[in-house]
Amino acid sequence: MRSAAVVGTGLIGTSVALALSRRGVAVFLDDADTTAARTAEALGAGSLAAPEQPVDVAVLAVPPARVGTVLKSCQERGLAHAYTDVASVKARPYRDVLRAACDPARYVGGHPLAGGERSGPLAARADLFEGRLWVLTPVEPADRAALNQVLELVALCGATPVIMDAAAHDRAVALTSHAPHLMSSLTAARLAEADGEDIRVSGQGLRDVTRIAAGEPGLWGDILEANAEAVADVLEACADDLRRTVAALRALHGADGGARRQAAADLQEILRRGRRGAGRVPSKHGARPAEFATVPVAVPDQPGALARLFAAVSEAGVNIEDVSIEHAVDQPTGLVELVVERSSTEEVRRLLDARGWTARDRTPAASRG
Amino acid sequence: MRSAAVVGTGLIGTSVALALSRRGVAVFLDDADTTAARTAEALGAGSLAAPEQPVDVAVLAVPPARVGTVLKSCQERGLAHAYTDVASVKARPYRDVLRAACDPARYVGGHPLAGGERSGPLAARADLFEGRLWVLTPVEPADRAALNQVLELVALCGATPVIMDAAAHDRAVALTSHAPHLMSSLTAARLAEADGEDIRVSGQGLRDVTRIAAGEPGLWGDILEANAEAVADVLEACADDLRRTVAALRALHGADGGARRQAAADLQEILRRGRRGAGRVPSKHGARPAEFATVPVAVPDQPGALARLFAAVSEAGVNIEDVSIEHAVDQPTGLVELVVERSSTEEVRRLLDARGWTARDRTPAASRG
Repeated sequence: MRSAAVVGTGLIGTSVALALSRRGVAVFLDDADTTAARTAEALGAGSLAAPEQPVDVAVLAVPPARVGTVLKSCQERGLAHAYTDVASVKARPYRDVLRAACDPARYVGGHPLAGGERSGPLAARADLFEGRLWVLTPVEPADRAALNQVLELVALCGATPVIMDAAAHDRAVALTSHAPHLMSSLTAARLAEADGEDIRVSGQGLRDVTRIAAGEPGLWGDILEANAEAVADVLEACADDLRRTVAALRALHGADGGARRQAAADLQEILRRGRRGAGRVPSKHGARPAEFATVPVAVPDQPGALARLFAAVSEAGVNIEDVSIEHAVDQPTGLVELVVERSSTEEVRRLLDARGWTARDRTPAASRG
Repeated sequence: MRSAAVVGTGLIGTSVALALSRRGVAVFLDDADTTAARTAEALGAGSLAAPEQPVDVAVLAVPPARVGTVLKSCQERGLAHAYTDVASVKARPYRDVLRAACDPARYVGGHPLAGGERSGPLAARADLFEGRLWVLTPVEPADRAALNQVLELVALCGATPVIMDAAAHDRAVALTSHAPHLMSSLTAARLAEADGEDIRVSGQGLRDVTRIAAGEPGLWGDILEANAEAVADVLEACADDLRRTVAALRALHGADGGARRQAAADLQEILRRGRRGAGRVPSKHGARPAEFATVPVAVPDQPGALARLFAAVSEAGVNIEDVSIEHAVDQPTGLVELVVERSSTEEVRRLLDARGWTARDRTPAASRG
């Protein structure tokens, strides 16, 4: 790839432009908002000049509802050989592309899974997409050359491409992004009129749950509108659970006996299901959940022995995730089981061996991930 | 303070013990779970011996439902001169304290606003409470000496004390912690049975919203039960908003004309209220929201001038939060307004002056914080 155009120099567009410019691609910037465009240029994202010949790929970093019309106008002026967008919904922009009578063979829908609460070019970073997923939703008759140009774009931004069906993408993001955004908004909305002293009594948990609610309402309105049905389906299921949760809490406050026990069980069911769901969220793209294994060690029943064992493992930079201590009544030693990341078990065994600890032989425990 | 007892060596208890031990306080540890107690000891949190005389203060780091009975047994064996607990609800433990016929004058309820998804002594840190709030809910006839012992404990842990009424505390945490926890659980619960490929399409936002849902269901069940009514009140208001949100999304998908416009307006209202609420969450305890001010600069209409301006400000380590660029048609210069943290404005003015930029005179804009 030698040249690219970025139409729309907000957070995402400018970040793409910065990433491509750093890799030596000639980037041409375009935005009706001249402050945004000139700011992006001044940050080194590219040039405000118009390209003299079609660029290899054009990235339309505009709101979802504008993808169709912007693509049409870019194709009419022959801006690029291949086109992609970055909208976080995919089915409706594609419908708009067909309605606007664009050439769909040159267009591959895209959605980089990156962003932030801050918007605009000043929040842009060349490494915004490093290690992130970037969904592509090519639809027949998208041509192979266009798809490959867009795959190269994704690679130059340091992201991992994932090819999906547009409708499946939209259902997935309803579940993982759009419905969670509204649940965050609903939680934060309760704070809008609350007493300041009450809000002061808060910790990191509240910051985390409400962070995405700070996103720009206009942009989010567009996104939610374009994916309204799928989001409503997810939220309706949340509403059912919420009704049951409120009923359980009311019964825990007021009821007795069997009704109370049932309410406690209902509440536990919600909490456990929530915990199971939270455990399925990828900790980082590409990173698998850590797998743990148990290293059993015989520890002499002497003052400070356990402290020395912990210190030895910590010095090696290995985190002890969990521990269990068994004291055998008829023996002068206790059995300590250290739970550490599976990848560190050999190192821990070698270390303990070198320090004279007896690492007992035992089948490692199954993964706790 | 010379001596303290910590009853319950989980995350919070062990962290208190580590903080006090580092400040030279003799700490005595007690936990029916001998693995937890021995682990805390091995981490340097204190001694497993029983104190020979009453300690200055005992911290009961046990579940909310056990505060009354544990306090009773500690007072019967004369463990300490003053007592506090760390339960995240306060009215019910106090009721239990009175029911158990404890001496309430020696007891000051407490709730440090710190924690984590990991539990147990291995997750403990001496600095867990640094810069955090620690609510105290003394009730007449709590004596002054007991209150001052507990205030010293809070100070030794590096936290900021806040004195509140127990019922007001419980209403506040229903709003800022308990209801948000359940909203996080409900969001995460949708992922429990979802397709793995769908969950893969997720970003930092989902991780943030669902993080607290990973908390221990047993512990959270106890907390929610002890504050059930206040939490139900908050969640019922969330349920009303959720119903309106689902109705708006359905209308955005299916309706036309006025109904559709009304639905879009309803959705915007929720998003805007959520954003306003999110903006009220303290960014860090003690930290006020940043205040911003505008520095206007005349920038010559030459290639690269704006880039040089940005570079000069960045080199000084000042972050540009926002920018607006006005080009006056009849002048050879444009007016650029840089929005920076108010505390940096003088530095930016001096810097620009030294580099020959004309920082125009203008009344600074009002705070955006």
